[in-house]
Amino acid sequence: MRFVDIIEKKKQGEALSEEEIQFFIRGYVANEIPDYQVSALLMAICFQGMSIDEITALTTAMLHSGDVIDLSSIDGIKIDKHSTGGVGDKTSLSLMPMVAACHAKVAKMSGRGLGHTGGTLDKLESISGFQIGLSEAEFIKQVNEIGIALIGQTGEVVPADKKLYALRDVTATVNSIPLIASSIMSKKLAAGSDTILLDVKYGEGAFMPDSASAEELASTMISIGKKLGKDTRALISNMNQPLGDAIGNALEVKEAIATLKGEGPSDFMELCLGAGSVILEQAKLADNQEAARAMLLKTIEDGSALAKLREMVEWQHGDVNQIDHPETLPAAAMTIEIKSREAGYVHDVKALELGNLAMRLGAGRMVKEDPVDPAVGIVLSKKVGDKVSLDEPLAVIHSNQTLTPDWIEDFYQTFVINEKEAKPVSLIEKIL
Amino acid sequence: MRFVDIIEKKKQGEALSEEEIQFFIRGYVANEIPDYQVSALLMAICFQGMSIDEITALTTAMLHSGDVIDLSSIDGIKIDKHSTGGVGDKTSLSLMPMVAACHAKVAKMSGRGLGHTGGTLDKLESISGFQIGLSEAEFIKQVNEIGIALIGQTGEVVPADKKLYALRDVTATVNSIPLIASSIMSKKLAAGSDTILLDVKYGEGAFMPDSASAEELASTMISIGKKLGKDTRALISNMNQPLGDAIGNALEVKEAIATLKGEGPSDFMELCLGAGSVILEQAKLADNQEAARAMLLKTIEDGSALAKLREMVEWQHGDVNQIDHPETLPAAAMTIEIKSREAGYVHDVKALELGNLAMRLGAGRMVKEDPVDPAVGIVLSKKVGDKVSLDEPLAVIHSNQTLTPDWIEDFYQTFVINEKEAKPVSLIEKIL
Repeated sequence: MRFVDIIEKKKQGEALSEEEIQFFIRGYVANEIPDYQVSALLMAICFQGMSIDEITALTTAMLHSGDVIDLSSIDGIKIDKHSTGGVGDKTSLSLMPMVAACHAKVAKMSGRGLGHTGGTLDKLESISGFQIGLSEAEFIKQVNEIGIALIGQTGEVVPADKKLYALRDVTATVNSIPLIASSIMSKKLAAGSDTILLDVKYGEGAFMPDSASAEELASTMISIGKKLGKDTRALISNMNQPLGDAIGNALEVKEAIATLKGEGPSDFMELCLGAGSVILEQAKLADNQEAARAMLLKTIEDGSALAKLREMVEWQHGDVNQIDHPETLPAAAMTIEIKSREAGYVHDVKALELGNLAMRLGAGRMVKEDPVDPAVGIVLSKKVGDKVSLDEPLAVIHSNQTLTPDWIEDFYQTFVINEKEAKPVSLIEKIL
Repeated sequence: MRFVDIIEKKKQGEALSEEEIQFFIRGYVANEIPDYQVSALLMAICFQGMSIDEITALTTAMLHSGDVIDLSSIDGIKIDKHSTGGVGDKTSLSLMPMVAACHAKVAKMSGRGLGHTGGTLDKLESISGFQIGLSEAEFIKQVNEIGIALIGQTGEVVPADKKLYALRDVTATVNSIPLIASSIMSKKLAAGSDTILLDVKYGEGAFMPDSASAEELASTMISIGKKLGKDTRALISNMNQPLGDAIGNALEVKEAIATLKGEGPSDFMELCLGAGSVILEQAKLADNQEAARAMLLKTIEDGSALAKLREMVEWQHGDVNQIDHPETLPAAAMTIEIKSREAGYVHDVKALELGNLAMRLGAGRMVKEDPVDPAVGIVLSKKVGDKVSLDEPLAVIHSNQTLTPDWIEDFYQTFVINEKEAKPVSLIEKIL
């Protein structure tokens, strides 16, 4: 088999065989196929696409390029959830304790943030002492004992994806549904859960530009899951404005805690309830979404979800005092209010720009090696659909550096306000 | 400027600016842009194409990546001719002496063969002592004195093409009109002539599969020539069967000499007269193609074309005795006749297969480093349209190794014969 013939075949729009796809992934991970041939194939895939059979074969080949986590020693249905990434997305911090409080088994590996999107690990690490690096044995023990653990990747999971993603990033081949779907699904399958819920976000601050492409990606991943015998479902959700009000690591932990007390932003709560209802169905803990929703609401009312978060933090050596007293979480040196210069309605709160501005404050990283500042970020006071009067605060910036007027202007420009009434954005567009 | 943005732009189907194309070629030649990014761009170009302005900018950037030959010290109009390569293509060996005998100035750099296509330099080197490596001063002196020199590349002409071609070859990005056109035209422009005649071949043994794609490539190159102020014209010619009867280095030299005596195959003579007529028009040595044709025929009748070849061989230290007595050129140890197993008409003589079989005999090279055997090859006795009786010879194989029955069968299978009458193939389809 010559790799150049595989490239030519895909260039001509033909489907690659399972053997050809295995040859590709094995050869690439073994450094036998050079980057310059792989990038040509990736670009050809961007143009010609791949069939579900091809994407499934690619996912499988990638999955088997590294370690596959064995969670079989955990009793019960192990659920997993994946978000394609967004701005202000602290869903795992609230949702996972909620479903764990309903007795779903949460053995979840999360990632770090890059660019304008945040990562669950960075958020958890704003809790003093919190350990994301458990051994596999500790991880399994914790889930068996308390039903939940949120950790970083253990072992070498899907090294093919690591290599491919680095190449895609510099060759303009990131945006391709077959490549995105196989990347996400290979990692989720390697993580060993029984069920997968995908939160596929679209809009300005998301990977997918519009709801049609998000749905195409979601359907593709569901098809792969089905082919590989994994219960896979998906939400399509809007990421044109940030999720919830807080952007920034400790700020988002505070918002997650508030949400578990029933005091969180309504859009974020709605996402947790929507996603949680599907997860409880998947875990066979609820017969339908209505019943699931009631169970989830009860975990807020009776404090069991918050108690679950506290328990997890305690097991992972985090400072539970910061959960009990969120005001003791890292705080920035200064807060700056951004005030409206006009009266009217908020028509847009630009998620991508806010994500980038938060990164510039230090909340996110430009490149993988950058440190993050847990304290800084933005808390929105107004969201799309809200009425605003002159001089009313739109957002509060939490910063450890003095902001120049230009910089403040950049924040202001993320809000689009005019006198016409605006409708609030519906967050969950569809459940597949 | 980030190269990944240039890739993305082309992926989206947008036109690249002159500056972006210069950045690409300069950065690639300077090893500042890695192969893996360039191959992604090349694949995107295969799918999205390039405008004439982009291809012209690419050609110009490639041209200036290396030495540009200065032929200004040669009096008169310097003509040049380029064939996209074929099987049995010995055109330069006959055509260049013919036009030089008509006082066109031929300062021509040729290449070597690769794969199933032969190269003029390999053919010339089957003449004992023939030197293809003249200094630029010797080259110019020779053209000023006798009007003709055929040599290998001097200096470092278009290093960008060398690097790009090697990458295209292993990334399935060879077949792209913008990339082929810029590769050919940058080298032709660097060779410094005043006029360019392109022989764009199509068919089984050629780069371009059909006459439509050959015409598209030819028109593209003519447009580039026009934009860059170079008189550029093109023939579209059929390469479904080999050109002339001989395939193999010394065999083709013999056929070229026979042609200059008026004893060559009619299709090859037709190509020389057709191409030569355009060249003499370009050189302003004939007012129209009819007059040019008469001049060319006269060089055969009066022996001046053959004398010009002999003179060039003498100046380039070749053994003129081999021109006077072609039977003294290298000859193979054995000749094997391939005889027809049926009576009928020849419908096809497969050029690509014959080119590959000639390479297997030793006439061509699989990789650049292979040596070639000047003596071996094939001489066709029948071509498309010819009537053939049972046991009549179809071809004679000149070999320095014993042929297995399988191998002889392969030769036989290059002929398609059946009882239905077949029309001879018209070689020149169009002159642009």
